[in-house]
Amino acid sequence: MNLAVIFSSICLMLTFQSAMAKETDNAKTASLSNQAKTHYVNAKGVKYAYRKFGKQSEIPLVLFQRFRGSMDHWDPKLLDNLAQSRTVIIFDNAGISKTSGATPSSVKAMGQDAVTFIQALGYSKVDTLGWSLGGFVAQQVALDRPELINKVIVAGSSPGGVAEAPRMTDEVLSVVQKHDSQNPMEDFLFLFFAHTDASRSAGMQHLGRLGKRSEAFGPETSAESVAAQGKAVMSWVMGKDSSYARLENMSQPVLVANGQTDVLMHVYNSYAMAQRAPNAKLVLYPGAGHGFLFQHADEFAKEVDGFLN
Amino acid sequence: MNLAVIFSSICLMLTFQSAMAKETDNAKTASLSNQAKTHYVNAKGVKYAYRKFGKQSEIPLVLFQRFRGSMDHWDPKLLDNLAQSRTVIIFDNAGISKTSGATPSSVKAMGQDAVTFIQALGYSKVDTLGWSLGGFVAQQVALDRPELINKVIVAGSSPGGVAEAPRMTDEVLSVVQKHDSQNPMEDFLFLFFAHTDASRSAGMQHLGRLGKRSEAFGPETSAESVAAQGKAVMSWVMGKDSSYARLENMSQPVLVANGQTDVLMHVYNSYAMAQRAPNAKLVLYPGAGHGFLFQHADEFAKEVDGFLN
Repeated sequence: MNLAVIFSSICLMLTFQSAMAKETDNAKTASLSNQAKTHYVNAKGVKYAYRKFGKQSEIPLVLFQRFRGSMDHWDPKLLDNLAQSRTVIIFDNAGISKTSGATPSSVKAMGQDAVTFIQALGYSKVDTLGWSLGGFVAQQVALDRPELINKVIVAGSSPGGVAEAPRMTDEVLSVVQKHDSQNPMEDFLFLFFAHTDASRSAGMQHLGRLGKRSEAFGPETSAESVAAQGKAVMSWVMGKDSSYARLENMSQPVLVANGQTDVLMHVYNSYAMAQRAPNAKLVLYPGAGHGFLFQHADEFAKEVDGFLN
Repeated sequence: MNLAVIFSSICLMLTFQSAMAKETDNAKTASLSNQAKTHYVNAKGVKYAYRKFGKQSEIPLVLFQRFRGSMDHWDPKLLDNLAQSRTVIIFDNAGISKTSGATPSSVKAMGQDAVTFIQALGYSKVDTLGWSLGGFVAQQVALDRPELINKVIVAGSSPGGVAEAPRMTDEVLSVVQKHDSQNPMEDFLFLFFAHTDASRSAGMQHLGRLGKRSEAFGPETSAESVAAQGKAVMSWVMGKDSSYARLENMSQPVLVANGQTDVLMHVYNSYAMAQRAPNAKLVLYPGAGHGFLFQHADEFAKEVDGFLN
């Protein structure tokens, strides 16, 4: 298995996602997240794009996005659920989509950029929810800046360097490595959802919910940013400067969650993380994969709400 | 590690539990479960003792108790929470406490007795929640009688024969094996709760909630029954006729739960079970052990309610 090729090629495979979203139902669904305007804040030479919405709360929930994703890729169903009881903030980190600057090639530096953004908004305490690569960043920030991070939700992710965790199967790897997929939607469903009719259907519904904003989708993540992210992901997954060795120092309450059949980030990584972090709840959802948080948007949002309250 | 001695001696260690409960606060707390009268039903030569309470529901939730425990050992806080939205049934299986007959020495036979009891009450479909040994029985019945069991909750338990699961530590084993403990309450807290002030305090509160019924506690489980249960538990834990090899056939939705630091039944068993059962949700609670369902009574009851609805 060559991890190097995974992250240099997955970028192409996911290009379709924005494209498809643009084609979906033009009806603009009334929703807090879809109605939220994009704002910008400047800090340390970077112009960060973000959206802020939901019920006013002293401590906002800041979301960290996956590899290659922008804030347009969060499912409005999840966002609207979360926003019912607290302020939710989504943003593009440095070098991604509508945010200027360069994407760093380490999770540590991504965490520093995230902190810069959060402090630029004037917050001294936030909750975080990170998905996949965003889950790496959430752990990094929680460990590096414990005074800033109140509670941590790590979804579809890994502490990196869990030797016993099963690797991707050859079948999954072959899909991830495709350079010119004939059927990118099929590949997306295969990688992000469980291989059942019910989960595939949930995946289609998820895609259908994207792109219902009045504003246009932000720019695709550039090849340079994708390459930098890929390098950061590879290092973390192989345990280089990842969180696993330091999890015993994670002082915050942590909610670790994933879909039971995640083929990209095996749930053993979540299990191992929740065993080592001192105050971690683990929830693994049935019949779902990496995209469990969209498939089980209602149930997961309720779990998050209970955890943060 | 000698499993044989574990289950022949643990009986003594837990004797104090009823004793202490009898000594606690004499105030009878008004609660659905505490107010429920003990009833009896005869079937196949056994007189089964049971209590039934809560909101009327077409499908009741039937609880299966742990090694050596009787229906008096369920925490009324958990029971009352569960009973808010459905009919809850607790009972003593054959040969235990107020129920006549002989306790069998296999989980399979215990499952048959449980089915006999359920059918004697006239039910053709029930939900089940089994804790520890009760979780073994719940799996057994779900596999043997899929038409009878709607949904399954397996708490602080194991599918048996999970080779990679960590065993009890020597320290835990030494406590379990005590024949004449000088401080049985201390041992109980050590085995059933996390080794933190917060969890120990939750354990004390749990004990304080027991014994607030008007009726006297049922008889201690006899030495013969404990020996038979011990034999059944040993066989299951070692994988002899346990569920692990058959979990792929478990057609029902399953909720698998435990406390993160369970020292009696390592949570890896829960993880492995939830990975193999086709439709399983896994929830592991922080800062709690084998008795997590009493420590987190509110949160766990809410989880159960969401799962069963």
